[in-house]
Amino acid sequence: MSYTPLLQQLIEALRCLPGVGPKSAQRMTFHLLERDPEGALRLAKALTEAVERVGRCDSCRTLSEAPLCPLCASQRRDRRLLCVVETPADVLAVEQSGAYAGLYFVLGGHLSPLDGIGPEEIGVDALLARAREGVEEVILATNPTVEGEATAHYIGELLREQGVGVSRIAHGVPLGGELEYVDGSTLTRALAGRKPI
Amino acid sequence: MSYTPLLQQLIEALRCLPGVGPKSAQRMTFHLLERDPEGALRLAKALTEAVERVGRCDSCRTLSEAPLCPLCASQRRDRRLLCVVETPADVLAVEQSGAYAGLYFVLGGHLSPLDGIGPEEIGVDALLARAREGVEEVILATNPTVEGEATAHYIGELLREQGVGVSRIAHGVPLGGELEYVDGSTLTRALAGRKPI
Ligand SMILES: [Zn+2]
Ligand SMILES: [Zn+2]
Repeated sequence: MSYTPLLQQLIEALRCLPGVGPKSAQRMTFHLLERDPEGALRLAKALTEAVERVGRCDSCRTLSEAPLCPLCASQRRDRRLLCVVETPADVLAVEQSGAYAGLYFVLGGHLSPLDGIGPEEIGVDALLARAREGVEEVILATNPTVEGEATAHYIGELLREQGVGVSRIAHGVPLGGELEYVDGSTLTRALAGRKPI
Repeated sequence: MSYTPLLQQLIEALRCLPGVGPKSAQRMTFHLLERDPEGALRLAKALTEAVERVGRCDSCRTLSEAPLCPLCASQRRDRRLLCVVETPADVLAVEQSGAYAGLYFVLGGHLSPLDGIGPEEIGVDALLARAREGVEEVILATNPTVEGEATAHYIGELLREQGVGVSRIAHGVPLGGELEYVDGSTLTRALAGRKPI
C-alpha cells in the first residue's frame, strides 16, 4: 500500500474511536488533511486537555474536571434523592428525560465476579456512605440487563439494612437494552413507575 | 445539560470527523476518557504530526510528508503511464485494484466554474508539464459524475493537442458514484476496458 508513515499512523490512531473501521479511518484522515486541518488541530487539543484534566467528581464519580461536577455543585437539585447508574453516559440519558431533579451516583460498571469486578470496584462503600448524608430514597437505575439487575439487587439489600428507602426504575425500560440508548419518554415512564423494593 | 466545559469541547471537536453526529461524539468522548485515554493521547499526537508535516508530493500532488510520495519515488512503477484522479483517496482506490502500475496526478477536485474552480485550481498546467516528461498515455480516472466527465473532456483535449495519448477509464464504474467507493474488481474492469478518446 502507498500510505506514508504519518498517514498510516493517523489512520491507525483513529481506530481507537468506537465504530470506526479501516475505511472510515482512511476517509477521516483524508478529510481532515485536505479540508479541515484546523478542525484536526482543535480535536488534538481537546483530546489532550480532556485526558489531562478530566477526572471524577468527588461526590458522584461522574466525569468532571472540577472536584464537584455541575450537578453535585448545583443548589437546585433535590439532595434527598440519589439515582444510581452504571456510567456517566447514563447520567446524561436520565438528565435528558427531564424527569429527575435529584443527585446521582455512578458505579462505573456492574458486579461481574468472573471479571474480578466486586463491590469494591463499583464503589459500594462510597455509595453507602453517600446514602447516609440525608438521602431519603435511592433509585437504582442500573441497566435492565442480567448483570444490572443483580447489581441493583445486591445494592438494594445493603441500603435497606441501613434503613434507606430504595426503589428500582420500572421496567418501562426494555429488558436486555442499554440505558444510554433509551429515549427520554421511556425513561420518564420508567422513573414515574418506580416501585419500592 | 450537564457536560463540563472540557467534555463539551471534546464532543464538539469530534464533530469535525465526517459521519460523526452529536450522539456518536458523546459516545466517543465517554469511551476515550473512561476506557482508552492512551488511545486518545496517541490520536492527539497523530493528528498534530500529520497536520504539521504532511504536505503534497512535488510530482503527483497526493498527500505526503516527503517531497516525493512512495509511489513517485519507486523505481518499480511504469513512468510511461500517468493516471489522473481527483483526490488522494482515489489514488488508493486504484492502487487497491492492483490493476495499475504507472504513476498518478492528483487534481485535488474537478472543474467547477460556479465555485471559482478553474484549470489553475486543479493544476492543469502542472499536469501538462508532467505529461511531457516521457509519458506515453494519460489515463483520465476522474469521478464518473457530470463534473468529472467534463473535467476529463477538458483535460483530454489539451493533452491531445500536445500529442500525448489519452484514455478514459471504461464505464464499468457506476455512473453518479464516487471512485473512492468502487470495489477493486470493478476498477480492474474499468481500467482494462479503457478507450482512447
Ligand atoms: Zn457529581
Ligand atoms: Zn507522488
